[in-house]
Amino acid sequence: MRMLIIALALAAPFSARAEDAPQPASNHDRGVAALDVITGGESARQLQVLADLAPAMARWITDFAYGDVVSRPGLDLRSRELATVAALTALGNAEAQLKAHINGALNAGCEPAQVLEVILQMAVYAGFPASLNGLTAAREVFTARGIKVSAAADSP
Amino acid sequence: MRMLIIALALAAPFSARAEDAPQPASNHDRGVAALDVITGGESARQLQVLADLAPAMARWITDFAYGDVVSRPGLDLRSRELATVAALTALGNAEAQLKAHINGALNAGCEPAQVLEVILQMAVYAGFPASLNGLTAAREVFTARGIKVSAAADSP
Amino acid sequence: MRMLIIALALAAPFSARAEDAPQPASNHDRGVAALDVITGGESARQLQVLADLAPAMARWITDFAYGDVVSRPGLDLRSRELATVAALTALGNAEAQLKAHINGALNAGCEPAQVLEVILQMAVYAGFPASLNGLTAAREVFTARGIKVSAAADSP
Amino acid sequence: MRMLIIALALAAPFSARAEDAPQPASNHDRGVAALDVITGGESARQLQVLADLAPAMARWITDFAYGDVVSRPGLDLRSRELATVAALTALGNAEAQLKAHINGALNAGCEPAQVLEVILQMAVYAGFPASLNGLTAAREVFTARGIKVSAAADSP
Amino acid sequence: MRMLIIALALAAPFSARAEDAPQPASNHDRGVAALDVITGGESARQLQVLADLAPAMARWITDFAYGDVVSRPGLDLRSRELATVAALTALGNAEAQLKAHINGALNAGCEPAQVLEVILQMAVYAGFPASLNGLTAAREVFTARGIKVSAAADSP
Amino acid sequence: MRMLIIALALAAPFSARAEDAPQPASNHDRGVAALDVITGGESARQLQVLADLAPAMARWITDFAYGDVVSRPGLDLRSRELATVAALTALGNAEAQLKAHINGALNAGCEPAQVLEVILQMAVYAGFPASLNGLTAAREVFTARGIKVSAAADSP
Repeated sequence: MRMLIIALALAAPFSARAEDAPQPASNHDRGVAALDVITGGESARQLQVLADLAPAMARWITDFAYGDVVSRPGLDLRSRELATVAALTALGNAEAQLKAHINGALNAGCEPAQVLEVILQMAVYAGFPASLNGLTAAREVFTARGIKVSAAADSP
Repeated sequence: MRMLIIALALAAPFSARAEDAPQPASNHDRGVAALDVITGGESARQLQVLADLAPAMARWITDFAYGDVVSRPGLDLRSRELATVAALTALGNAEAQLKAHINGALNAGCEPAQVLEVILQMAVYAGFPASLNGLTAAREVFTARGIKVSAAADSP
Repeated sequence: MRMLIIALALAAPFSARAEDAPQPASNHDRGVAALDVITGGESARQLQVLADLAPAMARWITDFAYGDVVSRPGLDLRSRELATVAALTALGNAEAQLKAHINGALNAGCEPAQVLEVILQMAVYAGFPASLNGLTAAREVFTARGIKVSAAADSP
Repeated sequence: MRMLIIALALAAPFSARAEDAPQPASNHDRGVAALDVITGGESARQLQVLADLAPAMARWITDFAYGDVVSRPGLDLRSRELATVAALTALGNAEAQLKAHINGALNAGCEPAQVLEVILQMAVYAGFPASLNGLTAAREVFTARGIKVSAAADSP
Repeated sequence: MRMLIIALALAAPFSARAEDAPQPASNHDRGVAALDVITGGESARQLQVLADLAPAMARWITDFAYGDVVSRPGLDLRSRELATVAALTALGNAEAQLKAHINGALNAGCEPAQVLEVILQMAVYAGFPASLNGLTAAREVFTARGIKVSAAADSP
Repeated sequence: MRMLIIALALAAPFSARAEDAPQPASNHDRGVAALDVITGGESARQLQVLADLAPAMARWITDFAYGDVVSRPGLDLRSRELATVAALTALGNAEAQLKAHINGALNAGCEPAQVLEVILQMAVYAGFPASLNGLTAAREVFTARGIKVSAAADSP
């Protein structure tokens, strides 16, 4: 099932030059499509937890954040997810969301090693503690997905 | 001149699958090469301002940050620079470095519109003020380089 | 018991125009009074945990933070607690204190829906992850207090 | 002109219990109305600076941030602006936006002394440097508006 | 004049083991004494700028921040100022206060090279951009004081 | 065993004027030595957890962070660890690393009360929530080490 969704992501509408690709007509439909790629088809279930307390938030996430911003043409979804992993690793105050976007980057087609490279790079821009906490998040996500990977061996 | 450097960047050593590309032998040489791409050949001049106060910092930037981290294979330099633009926009406390890396992303071969997309996306993950300040930084860099560009028109 | 304390809070000394209301004579007494409103009468117990390690901190919280700053006339306690909820949601690095001040806002007389609105609004100023983590904190506080509430239904 | 707008703000749609007040039909119209209150009628001019680089951002600010979030019933605009001043003072990385929202709080009907109280209170929750920088921003805004005010005299 | 004040600081009350040293009787007097050391005798002038807008803040800084916290025995003032330089460099959002405390560290008797070491070390814990901005602040302070110094030469 | 290591730390190479002390020849050896002091001899075990995912990070921590930065002469290791405790308390987003450096400060020879003073001082520069969370971290570390200490009693 996830394979199918990833394949969809790699085709359209998230290629780097998707300006001419057909896109769902409404923000809402684009948002649902983008969220389904990023969450591996679990967006409906994940947004449901917001329904009791803040139903508007579920709508904003779908229609605005993913339907209006993240699904814009001009940058492919893999690069967008790597950028989000970079930002959340650097900010260091949203562990759950960081894990969600490490999953999101993988669901969008990024290689695990690419995700690790972005997290490692944050040691330079946000300090070693932020990067180490990002690695801990990645380890948990990778373990849950059964991914065995390590960053490229050291340069000689 | 910049064209030449960008061409170099697009060839080697920063292709997405550069594991097998020949790399300079030492951290220092790799760092100088990466910095020259990112700064458009001005790394020596930029690092010189550190010489009076903290010569070690110039060495760390060259040998560690760019020679050991940023020049690692496993992720292309364009993606690395977009990740850095994302992180610095989100953190919002390093305007000079954000401008340097907007320039760096362009020097590494990113399209101006891709840089804008990353900055716009930070409205979702770090708030509108952070994104607006990132746009201000981008405007100044683009103006200095004579770039006339706007983010893709709104989705209909 | 909490009802009584809230009633006290709604009367004096925290009305929006309390400049002429009688206030306890000392910083310490004002601080104890403000903390008792905010904690629902549990300030003594909560500060006790500081006694082993840093007794000065308990004094600073009472005499300075609540006796000198938070109990100042010029702004009512409800607005002060909403401002604190906003700041802690935006900063995103003090979950325990955020929950304490969600409780504090409710103890000071804020409606649960008002607290939710402030947390939701932080999506604009500090990003969706910060707002989502604030909602999680609010859910836990509301559940512990037996509050069933949701933010106002979406605008049509 | 600004007087008229403020009067409008104090009436509808931003009263604390505005659920039953008539609201503009669309997000866009609500956003324009809210922004006109906050900016003192200058929203069109302020958003124009975004038109060259990121026209989508102007739309998001109007339709989402102000039309969908800030104009929600359930919390009055004065409390919302004080919460924003609190958050931006605490974050400390968006000076221009902090000044805009100090102006916005005043335009929405807050007393200058109330704005000062929120900024002073941030000394407790985000530290003295953040609060001092907030005071500097407030001084510049107050001076530009010809406001002579000081926070309430010390408690005796 | 500054020499005299520094000498005072090195003697009492800020020696590392000052528990038994005579201290001014009141928070206010201790705060004035600590501030005079840190500001090189300019505390009265610097606090005066707060008098128009927030006289309470001047009192809090003197009586609480410096009279109650910073002047506590148990840690010498030099170590306290280095800790403050570390924190403000890492937070990266209070440039004016960082410069004030670089001056403060020097006025308290720290060597310029020690201040540089703390700022350089923040590259590890808060990232290179934060450290570079700290170096820029240090350069301005050192230039204004006519200090010519550089961090220790690289280890061989 | 730890006693021996601390004694080593107090002697060389981390005295405040260690410029002339003999230092290990390579960054790697200096880093191992510094890490062994800070971790109380557990650095090899702690770095081992990085081996599966990011072996380069273990090398960077040893050779760069501790071998090149933290082991520099010009500032003693105790002051460096206090500066790190200050920064991590202020940033507030790296609890595990804060505890590691509270341990590190103690292993380097700091008094528990000095560590508490730095954490308490952060209430002034980063706000009470950050300081309170730092105290919680210190309590856990002190309890695990069997340390019974409290900050100096209040000034009279």
